Amino acid sequence: MIIMVGDGMGPAYTSAYRYFQDNPDTEEIEQTVFDRLLVGMASTYPARESGYVTDSAASATALATGFKSYNGAIAVDINKRPLTTIMQMAKARGMSTGVAVTAQVNHATPAAFLTHNESRKNYEAIAADMLKSDADVILGGGRKYFSEALVSQFSAKGYQHITELAQLDSITQPKVLGLFAEVQLPWVIDDTDANTLSKLTQKSLDLLSQNEKGFVLLVEGSLIDWAGHNNDIATAMAEMQGFANAIEVVEQYIRQHPDTLLVVTADHNTGGLSIGANGEYQWDTKLPKGISASPASIATHAIAADDWQAGVNQQLGFDVNSTELQQLTNARMQGKSTLEVALKKIIDTRSYTGWTTSGHTGVDVQVFAMGPAADLFKGNQDNTHIAEKMMSLLPKVN
Amino acid sequence: MIIMVGDGMGPAYTSAYRYFQDNPDTEEIEQTVFDRLLVGMASTYPARESGYVTDSAASATALATGFKSYNGAIAVDINKRPLTTIMQMAKARGMSTGVAVTAQVNHATPAAFLTHNESRKNYEAIAADMLKSDADVILGGGRKYFSEALVSQFSAKGYQHITELAQLDSITQPKVLGLFAEVQLPWVIDDTDANTLSKLTQKSLDLLSQNEKGFVLLVEGSLIDWAGHNNDIATAMAEMQGFANAIEVVEQYIRQHPDTLLVVTADHNTGGLSIGANGEYQWDTKLPKGISASPASIATHAIAADDWQAGVNQQLGFDVNSTELQQLTNARMQGKSTLEVALKKIIDTRSYTGWTTSGHTGVDVQVFAMGPAADLFKGNQDNTHIAEKMMSLLPKVN
Repeated sequence: MIIMVGDGMGPAYTSAYRYFQDNPDTEEIEQTVFDRLLVGMASTYPARESGYVTDSAASATALATGFKSYNGAIAVDINKRPLTTIMQMAKARGMSTGVAVTAQVNHATPAAFLTHNESRKNYEAIAADMLKSDADVILGGGRKYFSEALVSQFSAKGYQHITELAQLDSITQPKVLGLFAEVQLPWVIDDTDANTLSKLTQKSLDLLSQNEKGFVLLVEGSLIDWAGHNNDIATAMAEMQGFANAIEVVEQYIRQHPDTLLVVTADHNTGGLSIGANGEYQWDTKLPKGISASPASIATHAIAADDWQAGVNQQLGFDVNSTELQQLTNARMQGKSTLEVALKKIIDTRSYTGWTTSGHTGVDVQVFAMGPAADLFKGNQDNTHIAEKMMSLLPKVN
Repeated sequence: MIIMVGDGMGPAYTSAYRYFQDNPDTEEIEQTVFDRLLVGMASTYPARESGYVTDSAASATALATGFKSYNGAIAVDINKRPLTTIMQMAKARGMSTGVAVTAQVNHATPAAFLTHNESRKNYEAIAADMLKSDADVILGGGRKYFSEALVSQFSAKGYQHITELAQLDSITQPKVLGLFAEVQLPWVIDDTDANTLSKLTQKSLDLLSQNEKGFVLLVEGSLIDWAGHNNDIATAMAEMQGFANAIEVVEQYIRQHPDTLLVVTADHNTGGLSIGANGEYQWDTKLPKGISASPASIATHAIAADDWQAGVNQQLGFDVNSTELQQLTNARMQGKSTLEVALKKIIDTRSYTGWTTSGHTGVDVQVFAMGPAADLFKGNQDNTHIAEKMMSLLPKVN
């Protein structure tokens, strides 16, 4: 049983991704893995006291436990009492469990599947609690939260500890704690290898499927959300690509293991992304496709270089015009973050991309599924029902 | 067979409407008719030459004919040749047809179901062509496009012509041309009767169901889109209410006539609406719920009155603060439309509502269905497939 969460991936992201990956020289618009697997939608609102717009902690709690809680809650109820997670239920049945994410492994979503805490911000406590989860596979970022002492405890418990993706090949059986970055993994758009999440997913499947009692795996495309918070379309689309590739790895696995269930959803929508903006009935996909580095990275390079304009044009994939050059020149004098904002504004204006917020929005998210029980997830449902349905599919306890 | 189109009703509208109609004093969030009937989603992009963001004409053409065309096309292909509509196919089978809408009856969506034209803007020609459609029921707005001569032609062809909603009671059999406004019907939020579309829908069902060979009815909640273009949340939610009520009329009809198919969808998303904006993880539903008139109407009243502040507070349902009062005072001096914009800005800021455009966006829309063939519409599909599926369910021609 595999649950994959595209953090922040509301309906505009999957639609945008379809057009982003479309080849405009063919008559047809190519379908995506999301198009193939769509079965329903889910509401994401948190517990009444937090209003209608969820954060990643409350929604991860809903997906991991089947209960609504307050924004910030990590698998605890509104009275801060621990809630039983699907990972705990799996362990009670002798199954294996794992998480593979692109954020730090103690970030809200994996945290709510493996630990309990009254606040998502207690990163150190959450990292320490991961030890108790007995999870067989923990792959992602977050080295800075795992002290040497803590890592020793993991080792004492039989975990292999790795810090480089190249070391994945040497891991042939559980357990493994793989922390491949200080905090989050690199943006796909800046990475020399855009298949990192796919590799983490494949390795997780290889390791967890060794348990004949089965497994529950959480895979998160965590940084779609981060790019959404940054209102950064090119980076967001590259993260979508990384997540879609990872889903295709699982799709392949299920073709070979047809008794496996895959459920893909989002925890909420981020950024209020829109395909088309400012009155224009257009969205230019060629432009974000041509951008070869994140605006953050372009800004870093441009601040460091004297002759920066050529580099910016090259990384953007188009030549900025004189008005835009003036905007960038002014922004560059104010520093990296101002320059990054200016770059994103040019990208959004030219591509007709809209955003309404640096936070989350309350639109329903899609639910995608594959495997024998996929139909259970069709139509409209609440995010808590996704957890309930998955829990109902776990084997009975003897 | 009934197809209902919520013009501009992207996923954020149905989610927002759920929270808008929620009673915050109960623990549960009440489900809507949209929640009950969701089965899938649909992509809406127009023909390649018009990019990825459709207008209402191209999407209505897709829904009425099963073919992609250019933005502006009314049931014609990219070479401006007429395409066969589902309404023509129904007529060829001896079935009845009808449209019931809240815009003018010659507006893009009903136009593409009943006529063919190279441009949606040819309102007079489209109105005249409605005569040729032989539709049994034509209900909506648009008196200004139907000259006395044209109305005479309708009468000569056996149409009863009415111009007041109260006259609906007197119509007990087809055909009928009911034009209840010069252009569009009044906003639901400004109307003394919020059930106009429900009444038009009920009357259409009463009349069309007299044909034992069956019928195809198009119902459009046209003004959801218009409110979206205006970036006007209170008016949009009231239009959603009117559309939801009309769907419930059909739901009731299908319970009594279970061999009937209902498909509800949107032609596209409008405005880039988001639930939550400007970094806030909130959406205030109490505020839009308390507004008792459209910003356009509030502005009209405020311009006309000397002592306008009390009226504005009363119609808004809250007392504007001193900063807001200053904004409104300044805007009022610049005229009605500036005042209307200022009112909407206050409403959006206070309710955390976001918008990205006065136009359309390319996000996929939802598909809702009820009846024996509802499952045909599940999962992801293109809007042209909705038409193809509906056409495949028409009786075979003898």
